[in-house]
Amino acid sequence: MIGSRAPASPPSNHSATRNARRSHLAIVEERSRPTGRTADGELRLFEAGRFDFELGGSLAQVTLAYRTWGQLNAAGDNAVIVLHALTGDSLAAGPGGWWAPVIGPGAPIDTHEAFVVCVNVLGGCTGSTGPGRIDPLTRRPYAMRFPLVSIGDMVDTQRRLLESLGVTRLVAIGGSIGGLQALEWATRHPDMVAAAIPIAATGALGPMGIAVHGELGRRAIMADPDWRGGEYQSEGTFPAAGLATARMAAMTTYHSRESMDLRFGRNPATRPDPYPAFGPTFDVEGYLHHHGDKLVRRFDANSYLYLTRAMDLYDVGRDGGEERWLGEVNAPVLMVGIRTDWLFPPDEIEALADRMAALGIHATYAEIDSPHGHDAFLKEWDQLDEILTPFLRRFGPNEPND
Amino acid sequence: MIGSRAPASPPSNHSATRNARRSHLAIVEERSRPTGRTADGELRLFEAGRFDFELGGSLAQVTLAYRTWGQLNAAGDNAVIVLHALTGDSLAAGPGGWWAPVIGPGAPIDTHEAFVVCVNVLGGCTGSTGPGRIDPLTRRPYAMRFPLVSIGDMVDTQRRLLESLGVTRLVAIGGSIGGLQALEWATRHPDMVAAAIPIAATGALGPMGIAVHGELGRRAIMADPDWRGGEYQSEGTFPAAGLATARMAAMTTYHSRESMDLRFGRNPATRPDPYPAFGPTFDVEGYLHHHGDKLVRRFDANSYLYLTRAMDLYDVGRDGGEERWLGEVNAPVLMVGIRTDWLFPPDEIEALADRMAALGIHATYAEIDSPHGHDAFLKEWDQLDEILTPFLRRFGPNEPND
Repeated sequence: MIGSRAPASPPSNHSATRNARRSHLAIVEERSRPTGRTADGELRLFEAGRFDFELGGSLAQVTLAYRTWGQLNAAGDNAVIVLHALTGDSLAAGPGGWWAPVIGPGAPIDTHEAFVVCVNVLGGCTGSTGPGRIDPLTRRPYAMRFPLVSIGDMVDTQRRLLESLGVTRLVAIGGSIGGLQALEWATRHPDMVAAAIPIAATGALGPMGIAVHGELGRRAIMADPDWRGGEYQSEGTFPAAGLATARMAAMTTYHSRESMDLRFGRNPATRPDPYPAFGPTFDVEGYLHHHGDKLVRRFDANSYLYLTRAMDLYDVGRDGGEERWLGEVNAPVLMVGIRTDWLFPPDEIEALADRMAALGIHATYAEIDSPHGHDAFLKEWDQLDEILTPFLRRFGPNEPND
Repeated sequence: MIGSRAPASPPSNHSATRNARRSHLAIVEERSRPTGRTADGELRLFEAGRFDFELGGSLAQVTLAYRTWGQLNAAGDNAVIVLHALTGDSLAAGPGGWWAPVIGPGAPIDTHEAFVVCVNVLGGCTGSTGPGRIDPLTRRPYAMRFPLVSIGDMVDTQRRLLESLGVTRLVAIGGSIGGLQALEWATRHPDMVAAAIPIAATGALGPMGIAVHGELGRRAIMADPDWRGGEYQSEGTFPAAGLATARMAAMTTYHSRESMDLRFGRNPATRPDPYPAFGPTFDVEGYLHHHGDKLVRRFDANSYLYLTRAMDLYDVGRDGGEERWLGEVNAPVLMVGIRTDWLFPPDEIEALADRMAALGIHATYAEIDSPHGHDAFLKEWDQLDEILTPFLRRFGPNEPND
């Protein structure tokens, strides 16, 4: 079903090294050598034009911030779209990249053969149009007048960008909210999808995830008087306390009982407390405070509201049922779960892979055996390599030339 | 090891009916008949005098609010202290009682034979001295000048009350923070404890519990500008938004993924939203809002801070190690876990029971097989009956007279 894709085009002497299992260190060392592709990873903007949102509303002009690595071949069919997590951005690869060990020459997503694209999502706050943007009509930030964003909208706008770049076929891969987008690509855009790898994502977030990851945080932000009904930019405030609490709640869902027991146990706090303390405090509290505080310095509170809501609202089976939409998939799908993930539990991911297979889709399930919970897809580099490389060699642009 | 307890003294004709398994309904019907003990369940106050707190600080006068059911026998050894949960109070039995099906004539804790006491904890806000009380020295509420409260302090003050009532021996039973107190009774007051039943409680809360149940909520309260550094009473405000968010976070730990999937799934919200809504919302969100809103009308925010901190700080092995303190236990202990509890996970409870047994304690473990998570000890009446009744018949004041 992966169609008449041309063999990966740039001739390379990597077929031998591709077969060698690389350590994370080796990959980092190799990638720190200049490659001669100085344009790789540069932040670029794409004007996507007018956009009508799935759940209503439209904007006259939408901008997307994105980066690419590697070269698109003549057929335009060696693309990989890498889909970032909730507070992630387009800096997926290279120095500081959130998935640097996964993307690069000789890495599982091999930039000698793949043209890699990573786009900041619609509704985000690191270059793409979101609620923090100035509305040209009112000359004030959209704030809560921004239309509700869906995962479908994110993917639709990504498609516009990819088509403008000349991409004809792609592999869609990402974790968490990025995994939802990979699933959306496979079900709503099967004409372009050569393969999909949704990681740590199910067809729809369950109520425990909606509660702890989504609504607790939204409530904390919206209850912060500095949120000002979303108008904090115009009013010169920022709901820092609310956003920090939201991040703290979400961080617990990225961990697991096992990772917390291993890493924090009941150890006393060691970090200086950014908030007023109350009695002896624990290491886990200091860790959460630290991450709450850190997000406030780099993320927009309204974007946080919009993106978590998009994550909660996603349902692969919306408008017709799961079976109808899974029936659209004509690419191989690798569903990846994490043993200790309680945000997107692995048994739900495996069950979805089973339902796909029962419909005749080439769907497989692989599990990252990690104590680290949901965030293991940003940590377990060796296991990601083991899981992704064989699949991508077979179905992705990394496939052997022979 | 349960000593020379006199047989349960009030002669009763309940030995036959005691042996029949009662349905919840049957118990309620029986208990709704007048018993002739009109004083049962009346709210009373006990002046406990000056109290020095475990973690430092003291108060010149501490008051405890409590209720009793049944009659203390002449030997004073048929008492059962029922220990309430975080936002619970002394109304354990009778109409509106939080454990009504468990306590009463013919119930697992049989008030025909047992003298049942339930005390609002020190630091609480339903009658006992807590941070909301007026400090007689300053004529302002103690607020954050109230000393840090420990589980040990709660139990020490309970002991003063029980001794004043003439109690010589007792069974200590409770769930969650009440279970921690039951464990504290067994390890620090073995001279008075005939048996202990800690339910849904371990020797120390783990980091996931500290994070989601404790610190998220405290942070939300303390970040609420209406908290005013704890001085909201003096300043005529109340941190309603913060306390509501705290309750929402805690409620997720009282549920389980299984209970949430069963009860809410991804159903749309049906309740009117007490907070500003943002996009289509889910039933689980409405449920959390409802409970957040409800707690604000009945609970003090500073008490919430103190009691959750006491829960986090509890460690059965503090000051000498677990083995040293378990070595003090000379009563049979029934540790009860709940299959789906992620606040106090059942495997940790079972492991503690095993460590007790290895030390020669008559310790057994029983598990409530429930989808309802932590709060199952407030819901699974039939299983509580099955688990508690045989143990209490053997070791409690309900033991047969023959």
